[in-house]
Amino acid sequence: MAELRKDPITGRWVIIATERSKRPGSYHVEKDPSYTKAEKCPFCEGHENMTPPEVYAMRGAYSKPNAPTWKVRVVPNKYPALDMDVRFESLSEDFFMAMKGYGAHEVVIETPHHKKEANEQSVEEIKNWIQALQDRTKFLYTEKKFNYVLIFKNKGRAAGASLSHPHHQLIATPVTPKRVKEELVGASEYFKSTQRCVFCDIIKEEIAAKTRIVCENDDFVAFCPHASRFPFETWILPKEHCIDFYDEKVESDTLAAIMKETLKRLSKAIGEPEYNYVVHAAPNRIPREGYWTTIDRDYHWHIEMFPRLIKTAGFEWGTGFYINPTPPEQAAKFMREIKM
Amino acid sequence: MAELRKDPITGRWVIIATERSKRPGSYHVEKDPSYTKAEKCPFCEGHENMTPPEVYAMRGAYSKPNAPTWKVRVVPNKYPALDMDVRFESLSEDFFMAMKGYGAHEVVIETPHHKKEANEQSVEEIKNWIQALQDRTKFLYTEKKFNYVLIFKNKGRAAGASLSHPHHQLIATPVTPKRVKEELVGASEYFKSTQRCVFCDIIKEEIAAKTRIVCENDDFVAFCPHASRFPFETWILPKEHCIDFYDEKVESDTLAAIMKETLKRLSKAIGEPEYNYVVHAAPNRIPREGYWTTIDRDYHWHIEMFPRLIKTAGFEWGTGFYINPTPPEQAAKFMREIKM
Repeated sequence: MAELRKDPITGRWVIIATERSKRPGSYHVEKDPSYTKAEKCPFCEGHENMTPPEVYAMRGAYSKPNAPTWKVRVVPNKYPALDMDVRFESLSEDFFMAMKGYGAHEVVIETPHHKKEANEQSVEEIKNWIQALQDRTKFLYTEKKFNYVLIFKNKGRAAGASLSHPHHQLIATPVTPKRVKEELVGASEYFKSTQRCVFCDIIKEEIAAKTRIVCENDDFVAFCPHASRFPFETWILPKEHCIDFYDEKVESDTLAAIMKETLKRLSKAIGEPEYNYVVHAAPNRIPREGYWTTIDRDYHWHIEMFPRLIKTAGFEWGTGFYINPTPPEQAAKFMREIKM
Repeated sequence: MAELRKDPITGRWVIIATERSKRPGSYHVEKDPSYTKAEKCPFCEGHENMTPPEVYAMRGAYSKPNAPTWKVRVVPNKYPALDMDVRFESLSEDFFMAMKGYGAHEVVIETPHHKKEANEQSVEEIKNWIQALQDRTKFLYTEKKFNYVLIFKNKGRAAGASLSHPHHQLIATPVTPKRVKEELVGASEYFKSTQRCVFCDIIKEEIAAKTRIVCENDDFVAFCPHASRFPFETWILPKEHCIDFYDEKVESDTLAAIMKETLKRLSKAIGEPEYNYVVHAAPNRIPREGYWTTIDRDYHWHIEMFPRLIKTAGFEWGTGFYINPTPPEQAAKFMREIKM
């Protein structure tokens, strides 16, 4: 029997469709994760001149900028969605609102190795790019016109990655993305009526129920949310209440460890998954201090991961309605029981 | 230079990304639109016993139910996302909200012909399935537990259609889809401050500006919206204010004509497009009369069409942010200037 489930943060309903159900084991796919060649890859070591000059890097003491021997490099996106070189100004006509594409778009190259995906990297390597993501976010937020810095990863061609070399992206925008705003509003409403953080409550419920947990460690928990939109949708949250991804409270050892474990369990469960994930954290509070009086208590940063396993699109875009053929309890159990 | 644009109804921002721009002419793809074989197709004439018994049909005077010689057939989906045979009841645990998958899921088979897509059908044929969609919506709304009836079409495998035979789907749900609710809220807010329908205002602006118009006739207009999420995203609206798709005011001759023309222009512009469209109309008002006091004046039914031309997914799902590489002005001009 199908079930309708409601996301406790945003109020979004999903259909867990048992009539069209797919067992978690039936998604396994083998694909070549490396669809662009290392010889022509601008993110590979030795090809530093193929990218715009780096804006940040982790390098050894004797290593020069834009030259080999680095651990992580951050470069502006060669084809940026938004750009800092335009003036921040309105383009609004009488009726329609528009503004110049003021923003920033950066690429965080995780590793010099063309094929070394996060699930195969060491915890130390993952910690490095987490550090880079945190440092760049913090830096971009010093520009008070940036309301939001989106951190996301596209892995695989179908997930929208034009290059297969492991990388993350950051887009800084003068507006807060709609989905994040919905969470902010939902979390603040929940706080108003309960005086509690909805994410903290979800974590408590999930840890008590156990059925949707993928893995956990001292500081983080990974689970398939009750109202999962997609098969194997997985969220990672810090157990302790925290609103900023770059907060110094964030334990990067255990964060790196749970990222690695989650991605490893996912890839053992479904082969070479193409996926996207996004980091949802609080927006820039410099430009609007005191705007949300309770944001420090009601919001909670987290990662939402979406493997690309089913075909969806216009219907979901057009309605906000999701039909998920695999109950999160089954997906979580399958990942949890993978032998590591 | 990239541009950020805001949808006047929902407040959603999109990036019109000129740095990564794609000319409208560069999307042309040739694909076999018929990927399932007619011999095994449950929607083809003569195969009526391969579907659940029909719940509605347009047939000649001497034609028997579930037998050949029909124009349009409506059957329950064999693998329904939601089902009327379950009890309408809550499954909520203490914290998470859920309910049994009560609803309906029907398939409207547009034509007995396996390969006759809407752009190749006659206006008369299109009018028939419009009539069927209207009649079924009206019928489903007599069940007052159905808050919403979604009408949508998936065309092509990548658009989520498992069968290539031309068909629409209807899903009746006990909840109003999130995206529709956002429009209802946005339209009602707009009405509060202006005493006008936001859709009527958009139509006025678009017809005056001309730049984003694809085509129009006496009763309907098709245009690429100012804040288009996708290349060639096209909306079709009745020019006269109207909130229900099944309203008797809806002129099915001119609606059929503009559907045909829009799909024809789209397919001449980009080949054999895979696409989705959804009908957004008012929710069921029987169960909550007087709930929205101004809904009759502030909402406006319409069709939103999304050709599947670019890869998007987790990022868009995770953020509600869209990056569109082709300005709607270019897409509209390209379709408008197609020789018919």
